Amino acid sequence: MLAGVLPFPAEVARAVDEYCCSHSTALPPHLAEHKAWTAENYESPDRMSSSLQAQLFIFLASDRRAKRILDIGAFSGYSALAWKEGMKALGGEVWTLENDPVMVDACAKALSKYDAEGKIHLVSGPAIDTLRTFKGVVFDIIYFDAWKGEYIDYLNIVLELGLLSATGIILADDTICRGLVADDSDRNPNAIDSWKRPNLRRAVRAHVHAWNEYIIKDERVDVFLLPAFNGMSMIKLKTAA
Amino acid sequence: MLAGVLPFPAEVARAVDEYCCSHSTALPPHLAEHKAWTAENYESPDRMSSSLQAQLFIFLASDRRAKRILDIGAFSGYSALAWKEGMKALGGEVWTLENDPVMVDACAKALSKYDAEGKIHLVSGPAIDTLRTFKGVVFDIIYFDAWKGEYIDYLNIVLELGLLSATGIILADDTICRGLVADDSDRNPNAIDSWKRPNLRRAVRAHVHAWNEYIIKDERVDVFLLPAFNGMSMIKLKTAA
Repeated sequence: MLAGVLPFPAEVARAVDEYCCSHSTALPPHLAEHKAWTAENYESPDRMSSSLQAQLFIFLASDRRAKRILDIGAFSGYSALAWKEGMKALGGEVWTLENDPVMVDACAKALSKYDAEGKIHLVSGPAIDTLRTFKGVVFDIIYFDAWKGEYIDYLNIVLELGLLSATGIILADDTICRGLVADDSDRNPNAIDSWKRPNLRRAVRAHVHAWNEYIIKDERVDVFLLPAFNGMSMIKLKTAA
Repeated sequence: MLAGVLPFPAEVARAVDEYCCSHSTALPPHLAEHKAWTAENYESPDRMSSSLQAQLFIFLASDRRAKRILDIGAFSGYSALAWKEGMKALGGEVWTLENDPVMVDACAKALSKYDAEGKIHLVSGPAIDTLRTFKGVVFDIIYFDAWKGEYIDYLNIVLELGLLSATGIILADDTICRGLVADDSDRNPNAIDSWKRPNLRRAVRAHVHAWNEYIIKDERVDVFLLPAFNGMSMIKLKTAA
């Protein structure tokens, strides 16, 4: 069909989300348990990925036969647990990075409960510093889900140090910024509803737009901006003949 | 973020679509030319994939290093041209199936113009019959975009004849049916606006829902129902350890 993005009011969007969740391969129960625990005990649980997005992560990790995944922005460990689940058949490992001490502690608690095998490695500290320590390591999937003002730095470090495998993919999350990068007017219901702090909203939108403008001009890579969830950029190295 | 699908009114949805198009690796000019020609000369041009979806096809074919793609439902050849473009570096080939003689003719015209190298093979006739002739051939991507009442048959033939490579993917298009499978009430603007023929709408919605109910119970495969475009199911064989 000709339209790339369908219009939905809020309650239809919710119904479509639920329909997609219930018609995609189900999440293992511990992910729902972990999400509920995070929502109960920590602020801003909407910073976790959605259930549907976790279903995609499991699908992608499995589909791509990933063995090593780098997850930038652990929060409470939800996406790391999803990546691990998607690599279960092949026994792959996840490195997950977090700078906020409260969330480092939350993630560590989750891993002690759900990762007895030690397949997930939590690294605390600023992501940019941690990334530089991975020189010589290659990942099949690299997921950006941290401070939007640093995405360009993450990309440049990843490409300069060769951290992405030749057949690997970078997934950068939240890259339509609730549609605000395309329409920040009151027509966009997410402009009114979503954020309590307008200065933060403006800063995030500016960072996300700067990222999108940067990546589309970067001749090292191909990019596809997927209009699902809060927008997810898929980035690969250009394929040589 | 917690929501899997963002709500947008029609004009914001269009702005987001355009933003994603302009911030994804650009289509080659002949695809836009071909789309305009189809819209000018044939009925129901909204049966073509969107520009953004064509950008995804090129990205995916290249990302997956596909060598053979099976495209069920050629229409005027737009998706086949996108698949070919995505395989350009590796020189892969597309088999595209069409039953409507008017569209077989349209597609043949497009291929004579845009596929001098003969990388796209147009096969006319009912898809179910054509599929059976591929026994012994294996595809990296199989795209369903024909009559929704036949998707279950396509799946069963593909799996029974082993037409999908062990690392391959099936993409089944239009599987949220404008959100109608989740909410068919007047709350859904696509219920009111989209189709002139309510009987056809009901039939398509019923077929799509039956497909979604079937695939989620099929133990041979994993499925992810992507809430982008008009819904696109991604299907892979379950991964063995």
